[in-house]
Amino acid sequence: MSKQALLIIADGMGDNPIPMLNDLTPLEYADTPHLNALASKGLFGNVYPVKPGVPVGTDVGHLAIFGYDPYEIYTGRGPIEAYGAGIDLHPSDIAFRGNFATVDDELMVIDRRAGRINQNTEELAQAVDGIMLSNGARVIARALSAHRVAIVIRGKNLSEHVTTTDPGTTREGKRVQQSVALKEDSDSIETARVINELTEKMYAVLSLHPINQQRIIEGLPPANMILLRGVGREIQAPKMTESFGIRGACVAGDRTVLGIARMAGLDVFHRESFTAGYDTDYIGKAELALSKLKEGYDWVVLHIKAPDLAGHDCQPMTKASTASKLDKMAGYILQRLDLEHCYIGYTSDHSTPCERRDHSGDPVPTFFAGDDVRTLPIEDFGEKYLVHGALNNLTALDFFHIQMDHLGAVKKLGA
Amino acid sequence: MSKQALLIIADGMGDNPIPMLNDLTPLEYADTPHLNALASKGLFGNVYPVKPGVPVGTDVGHLAIFGYDPYEIYTGRGPIEAYGAGIDLHPSDIAFRGNFATVDDELMVIDRRAGRINQNTEELAQAVDGIMLSNGARVIARALSAHRVAIVIRGKNLSEHVTTTDPGTTREGKRVQQSVALKEDSDSIETARVINELTEKMYAVLSLHPINQQRIIEGLPPANMILLRGVGREIQAPKMTESFGIRGACVAGDRTVLGIARMAGLDVFHRESFTAGYDTDYIGKAELALSKLKEGYDWVVLHIKAPDLAGHDCQPMTKASTASKLDKMAGYILQRLDLEHCYIGYTSDHSTPCERRDHSGDPVPTFFAGDDVRTLPIEDFGEKYLVHGALNNLTALDFFHIQMDHLGAVKKLGA
Repeated sequence: MSKQALLIIADGMGDNPIPMLNDLTPLEYADTPHLNALASKGLFGNVYPVKPGVPVGTDVGHLAIFGYDPYEIYTGRGPIEAYGAGIDLHPSDIAFRGNFATVDDELMVIDRRAGRINQNTEELAQAVDGIMLSNGARVIARALSAHRVAIVIRGKNLSEHVTTTDPGTTREGKRVQQSVALKEDSDSIETARVINELTEKMYAVLSLHPINQQRIIEGLPPANMILLRGVGREIQAPKMTESFGIRGACVAGDRTVLGIARMAGLDVFHRESFTAGYDTDYIGKAELALSKLKEGYDWVVLHIKAPDLAGHDCQPMTKASTASKLDKMAGYILQRLDLEHCYIGYTSDHSTPCERRDHSGDPVPTFFAGDDVRTLPIEDFGEKYLVHGALNNLTALDFFHIQMDHLGAVKKLGA
Repeated sequence: MSKQALLIIADGMGDNPIPMLNDLTPLEYADTPHLNALASKGLFGNVYPVKPGVPVGTDVGHLAIFGYDPYEIYTGRGPIEAYGAGIDLHPSDIAFRGNFATVDDELMVIDRRAGRINQNTEELAQAVDGIMLSNGARVIARALSAHRVAIVIRGKNLSEHVTTTDPGTTREGKRVQQSVALKEDSDSIETARVINELTEKMYAVLSLHPINQQRIIEGLPPANMILLRGVGREIQAPKMTESFGIRGACVAGDRTVLGIARMAGLDVFHRESFTAGYDTDYIGKAELALSKLKEGYDWVVLHIKAPDLAGHDCQPMTKASTASKLDKMAGYILQRLDLEHCYIGYTSDHSTPCERRDHSGDPVPTFFAGDDVRTLPIEDFGEKYLVHGALNNLTALDFFHIQMDHLGAVKKLGA
């Protein structure tokens, strides 16, 4: 029987020394006996998401984890959000990352996230879905989590060389931006025109929508606009699972991660209790991942979003507690898996240092344990102890190939 | 006097922990006092053949060791075999890796290796050598070791964008494949046609050959076909020895290695007792390499094939014993060389873990010892002890440049 592998992804877990944690990182501070034991049974190191000193988004970090070179294939966040929403992109589509927002009748932005709306967004997206534009193109809209929404324009002669309409993260009080062509060809000029037409039509449909009328009555900001950014086209890359001839499964709650996994050819598995929040169902995910291994998947990825949230929220103790919970989950898995038949890996898409409240270009703690993997002793699990490992300073893409090589899925170069 | 260097290549020596060897690798398990001593007198580390997680063939591994980027210049195994057979390729040639095989009169493959024929193949190759094809091209055929044979088609307008005729390693009972053009240009279509013509002509010549008539009488499968694969053109790269202005020598028994060394511009030295097997003449190779250093060669490469065979055969103890023999050879060399005048390096073309019985993408133990090389203490010689070395996670191509730089052969970039 050929071997299998389980990869645990702790989103944003990498961090830097924090005074509140005695100048340790959350991972160094937390009690992680199972991660320690696993790291000592294989390769370990701090691995760069793409290259030293380059911070990446969740999307790019996961593209690399799933075996893609983001510098080659990344075309913008829009397509990733579309995959996350379950939209199968066509080559001629352009896709956007959208935000429900509140604007006034002169399209001045009052709230970029419509009061962080998190109810009834599916109905609002449905009101926009199917809008026809004057060039014959049709709009596809699907609600994502909270105020987020995937927008696709499907038609002919569309160009991604256009500016988008979101005035930016810190500029409430500015008008929804006019889309402008970034190239002088007629496709780009025409595409900018229909994006502006879409802005007008979305306002017309959304501002009159009963859900928004009700929100106004309740004193809530109406979600009467969708701000667009991250325009891009379908990612023109073969499914990783086909390139490597493996069956892959992804167990996650985060829509973006599920979307990238689907694009990469993994079957995706999601449950209501996988919240992509602090309260996510660690053991439920572990159980589901184990069941996918039993079903014969070669490579099963299990994603936990919580550490990233704690980094953005600057909550070191909370972040350390996500490490402890993750360690307990690893222990649960370790009791039920035999390293003789299944490798266990661990990594992150990027570091989200609490003090920065955002992603950094630091490398991320990583290991790959298994029966026939080269080993080294390790003192404890955490950034400072991993520097001496064999994986140190490699990249996420290297790490992907190392996993695939152990599964026997990398073609020999030469003969 | 400028310095010289001797590089020992232990083919396929890299390995992973093996239960039978107390979870040590063959190199860690074997007693290697001389390799330990040498590693402690220089740079060391585990070096990737091309990049992390990518397994390579002997050909590609040696291209990198000899200073070439395989991703830039590798065109297929055919040309490498031609170099191994001593054929000087022309730019318009196409070259194949051939197998003597047994087919029936409908060209169904009965034995892909003609009973692993290892006698009289030179006469059989001579019968094919010189065959003229209807497009005016001529065939060059040279026997290699055992059932292997190098085939070159020399003529005009030949294309390498064609399929070859070997039905594959596991498909005896299939017909010799028809060559088909992979591009629609007339050169590719015409080349596929003459390859199929060659198949017919080889069968005509070989099936009537007295040696095969005799084999049939003796109950042996006749070598009445040559299966072709690995088509490629001359490697369009300057001789490494000219690029770096050095004189190089290669002492080896393996034809592929000798072929790549010749292509790289090294003078090659081979003796009957260099068998490319377990029984090869370690001390004879050491003596010959030492004599080439005395003659003034700048860079002398000494190749040992045995560890790779033990990996493919899954013989951990035998593999460990090749490490011991290699260590004794290193001791013999060390007694006769002064590190003040000559560096001693050690590496492998790839890992061949016993449990996998094939090449893996793991990095290979490597050192470069010399009087003026930076040093670190090392506990013992073997995969796990090398991780902390300065060469760790570099590539074979990096290692090549480090050697050349110590020889003063790398041009300064800038002024």
